[in-house]
Amino acid sequence: MPYGYNGKILRVDLSSKSLTTEELPENFYRQYFGGESLIGYFLLRELPRGVEPLSPDNKLIFAAGPLTGVPAGGCGRHSVGSKSPLTGGFGEAEAGGYWGTELKMAGFDAIIVEGKAEKPVYLFIRDGEAQIRDASHLWGLKTLECQNTIREDLGDSGIKVAQIGPGGENLVPFACIANDLDAFAGRTGLGAVMGSKNLKAVACRGHQRLSLADPQAVAAIARWIRDNTPVANKRMHDFGTANLVPTLNKNGGLPTRNFQDGSFEGVDKISGQTMKDTILVKRRSCFACAIQCKREVKVEKPYTVDPSYGGPEYETIAALGSDCGIDSLETIAKGNELTNAYGLDSISCGSSIAFAMECFEHGLLTPQDTGGLDLRFGNGAAMLEMIEQIAQRKGLGALLSQGVARASKKIGPAAKEFALHIKGQEIPMHEPRWKQGLGIGYIMSPTGADHCHNMHDSNYNTMSALLGEAKSLGILEPVPADDLSPAKMRMLIYSSLWMHFLNSAVNCYFVNVFGRVGFERTAQLVNSVTGWNTSVFELMKVGERAVNLAQAFNVREGFTSHDDEMPHRFFTPHTSGPLQGVALDPKAFQEAKETYYDMMGWPHGSPSPAKLGELGIEWAIPLMRAE
Amino acid sequence: MPYGYNGKILRVDLSSKSLTTEELPENFYRQYFGGESLIGYFLLRELPRGVEPLSPDNKLIFAAGPLTGVPAGGCGRHSVGSKSPLTGGFGEAEAGGYWGTELKMAGFDAIIVEGKAEKPVYLFIRDGEAQIRDASHLWGLKTLECQNTIREDLGDSGIKVAQIGPGGENLVPFACIANDLDAFAGRTGLGAVMGSKNLKAVACRGHQRLSLADPQAVAAIARWIRDNTPVANKRMHDFGTANLVPTLNKNGGLPTRNFQDGSFEGVDKISGQTMKDTILVKRRSCFACAIQCKREVKVEKPYTVDPSYGGPEYETIAALGSDCGIDSLETIAKGNELTNAYGLDSISCGSSIAFAMECFEHGLLTPQDTGGLDLRFGNGAAMLEMIEQIAQRKGLGALLSQGVARASKKIGPAAKEFALHIKGQEIPMHEPRWKQGLGIGYIMSPTGADHCHNMHDSNYNTMSALLGEAKSLGILEPVPADDLSPAKMRMLIYSSLWMHFLNSAVNCYFVNVFGRVGFERTAQLVNSVTGWNTSVFELMKVGERAVNLAQAFNVREGFTSHDDEMPHRFFTPHTSGPLQGVALDPKAFQEAKETYYDMMGWPHGSPSPAKLGELGIEWAIPLMRAE
Repeated sequence: MPYGYNGKILRVDLSSKSLTTEELPENFYRQYFGGESLIGYFLLRELPRGVEPLSPDNKLIFAAGPLTGVPAGGCGRHSVGSKSPLTGGFGEAEAGGYWGTELKMAGFDAIIVEGKAEKPVYLFIRDGEAQIRDASHLWGLKTLECQNTIREDLGDSGIKVAQIGPGGENLVPFACIANDLDAFAGRTGLGAVMGSKNLKAVACRGHQRLSLADPQAVAAIARWIRDNTPVANKRMHDFGTANLVPTLNKNGGLPTRNFQDGSFEGVDKISGQTMKDTILVKRRSCFACAIQCKREVKVEKPYTVDPSYGGPEYETIAALGSDCGIDSLETIAKGNELTNAYGLDSISCGSSIAFAMECFEHGLLTPQDTGGLDLRFGNGAAMLEMIEQIAQRKGLGALLSQGVARASKKIGPAAKEFALHIKGQEIPMHEPRWKQGLGIGYIMSPTGADHCHNMHDSNYNTMSALLGEAKSLGILEPVPADDLSPAKMRMLIYSSLWMHFLNSAVNCYFVNVFGRVGFERTAQLVNSVTGWNTSVFELMKVGERAVNLAQAFNVREGFTSHDDEMPHRFFTPHTSGPLQGVALDPKAFQEAKETYYDMMGWPHGSPSPAKLGELGIEWAIPLMRAE
Repeated sequence: MPYGYNGKILRVDLSSKSLTTEELPENFYRQYFGGESLIGYFLLRELPRGVEPLSPDNKLIFAAGPLTGVPAGGCGRHSVGSKSPLTGGFGEAEAGGYWGTELKMAGFDAIIVEGKAEKPVYLFIRDGEAQIRDASHLWGLKTLECQNTIREDLGDSGIKVAQIGPGGENLVPFACIANDLDAFAGRTGLGAVMGSKNLKAVACRGHQRLSLADPQAVAAIARWIRDNTPVANKRMHDFGTANLVPTLNKNGGLPTRNFQDGSFEGVDKISGQTMKDTILVKRRSCFACAIQCKREVKVEKPYTVDPSYGGPEYETIAALGSDCGIDSLETIAKGNELTNAYGLDSISCGSSIAFAMECFEHGLLTPQDTGGLDLRFGNGAAMLEMIEQIAQRKGLGALLSQGVARASKKIGPAAKEFALHIKGQEIPMHEPRWKQGLGIGYIMSPTGADHCHNMHDSNYNTMSALLGEAKSLGILEPVPADDLSPAKMRMLIYSSLWMHFLNSAVNCYFVNVFGRVGFERTAQLVNSVTGWNTSVFELMKVGERAVNLAQAFNVREGFTSHDDEMPHRFFTPHTSGPLQGVALDPKAFQEAKETYYDMMGWPHGSPSPAKLGELGIEWAIPLMRAE
């Protein structure tokens, strides 16, 4: 087996209760690495076109990568993927925490889950052995209770649990998969797929050490990461991802009231600094990480918030906070607890509520629809109630749980304007009228609007800081945020390829990019783990292969360039604030889109045979075209 | 100025006798490096479309790169370029020796020569100062005499001379530029451009040391190269490039009698081993190189061969030897002396003679045409006589000096079959029916058939040895020599991009690739010279930028995919020997060509705007289209 890997993939057929182990040659691992890329490989090869995402024919894949579990900062990540019930296309998301490391220690690199269990089950994997266990007593439990019960049942408090909450059980198409209570494969509705298979959890426990090609070299790089990344990324260490709040607000980039505005009057009440000064209990980290960007908060009034669930990240603060017009950090923290306990993607959940609030204010939803709730922007109690209803698919929540794309169709044509999504997935909390390149990144992401497939700060203000590294890719000059020139498309694409590599490695963007680990040191890390002689060129090609597999999957599912469209709102300017009068220009945006396709080797959005050939995945050509 | 560079480009207008120095920002050097890429930059920007190559409006550029003159093996190279009088397109060639190093020591990175001197002149550059000097007394001299005279005139035996011989003076369109008597910017007729400007020589002398970012790191890599490359490349050290002769012959890949055959009955008489056992005096090297692949030979009968001119390389042995059916190493050595003394490209010269021999044997040329010479294959004396006539453009030489493309048109339609060229440039001595990928490389080279723009051993037999390195680009499996699949096109393109990078650095293929320096160590060398933080990715993009500039130049000159055609002969099998029955398949070849274009981002052979944008050279888009 290759260093850095176990060389074993567990295949679980829940319908037949079969458990098999597959071993693939080293070149398979070198070509597909792990994470997103490995998921793309199996989904494209093994799913027939048109599989119903919530049917037993869909597959759910948990995938570590060569860096997962390596004792170095940023290496505590894994990836989960499936055909998405939210978008109908390639579904994939990465998560931090400790679960991925435990999977590696337990002897596997990936798990492919097929079929559907007759009744609720969970998987337990320990030291190379796997079991399908009854989960009848776990069904319906919130994530904390579920994790506690599994650990008690098995008598091992060191067990790590990836699981769905009631959201996934109830097949909410934006339900997530939680692990370690505060880490999430959040987007594209993977929790619903897991729920559709009656799979409540995957519990891992391992005691084997990862075999490294050059342990001393790994240790030296790990020390460098430990000593340097918290310094380079000090704001993330000090204030968590919430450090972004005031910066974005100042630039008109803090989504406010369903992206109607980009500056929020209540910004100071929801910042990372305020969190630190008020409700923060302590910092948390993922495996082996010194940045410790995760938070743990405790609130006693007006709500009780259990610290077990950590604390809200930036995306959650914006989605449940400013984007819903809510300026109470305590309320946001409660909302965070609820989405975590129920296993809902807080971005899509918050966006759906913000969408409903705008509909309500415009009379498209009435008190009759809301069960009497005054669902206006700023009503924190209503927001919390809607999370409950969405998780349970009750009341108005039954509608909103479908996501804004489907919900708006049911409400009527006038609601379309407020339904901010791409390919059915709600927009993350980064304003594309400010970071205009990111707008292209949103439409180009195979998973729908996604901020984890782009280096979403590839704009002047942060690229100028990162430029020392960008130069090593040949990008010698910064490009302004509102630029959509070919130079910006190059920057976007190169950064996107690196992100797709990181998602395949699997490795953390905050550590790797913001922590300034550097392209070359990352290659050295891969080499000292695997014993390969990789280069930044090969790693960029790994990322390119990953995104091409995902795009090929979408093409097979019938996606075209018409699905790569930005919501109309972002072509309309803010009426006040720093971005007053600023909007995406439709013509420039369209030209940029075409340039992006051409640079990618994706004529009309579809990977060309030559591009797939260049990436060594000619086998994808007939699969992509399969009827 | 950036480390590794002087930061100064000398511009010489021979018409106005002006000498100016240009300084460009560091990012210019980082983007265009030097050599081929820098030449492409200036030719594309400064030459109007349709310039007559031998007119004063053409420009001749001598360009070092950041690695030129660095005290490490492989760093003794520079590049020369111009619009080619042989092809009418991008003309460029690299040369080894010591001249490029001396140019750097003399304070310049490149020389752009414009206009035309009224009467013969030469340039003398010493320690940052440049002079235009009278060369009336040098005109007509062979290269040895010219070099000696310049050194005597200036009283400095350390002066390095790049020059033309009578071939260039007489505007032979495949005249080369010689330096140090045994190194040549051989191909595309650059010597004729120099002759058209009445520029006999560029003499350099410098005493300044190159400023290196990290001299100790450079020294460490230089030691590694010194200690390892002659071991990895032992056959080149022992037998020079002629080591190839028996290997190629055994595989049917030794061009014989104008590529009618691939095995030569006289092979043992012209091998590197035989040279070592008979006429070899000693090994020679380029600057700082331990491989010492160059030869010095001495012959006293039947001809006197002056050791000053070194000894024949493989290309010369095949072009003047087997391809002309000649099995006398002494005769070949004499021919080598003549081409070197007259400044003729031995590949095109030998190929033109082989072409004439085949025409003669088929009665398309008669004794009347040859002045009574029995110009049959195997007639060594006739071959030598034709070199004399070509250099002087006399007798049949006046016709053959035009190259096989033009000569065949004058002889008549029946001669076309024997005129082996691409874009007007004669085929190098590597059999494309054996190395089929190289056939694609030949047609894709912007300079016409050229073996220095492709890693011409990117086939199974040698790639399997090199595969450890290929893996670091993501090429995990070897591809057979006769394969034209997308996997081969990828291998060709990646290797070609690296070659174009080496030609821009400027660095030696024999040291870098065959010596197994490795991609990553090369990046480290660039970094320790320049102080940059480059990566293999950036270096590959440097190569890609270089070839795109060259291709854009050709597009502007009206070249289309119809110029990317292989001579008919290579679609016809050998009738005997190892390649009996083997030929290029027209359909597979055409498909491979289309795949290559698509992989390059060159629809129908023309760089797409997106590709140029991705490479940061959007400025080339309107220039490429200029009418």
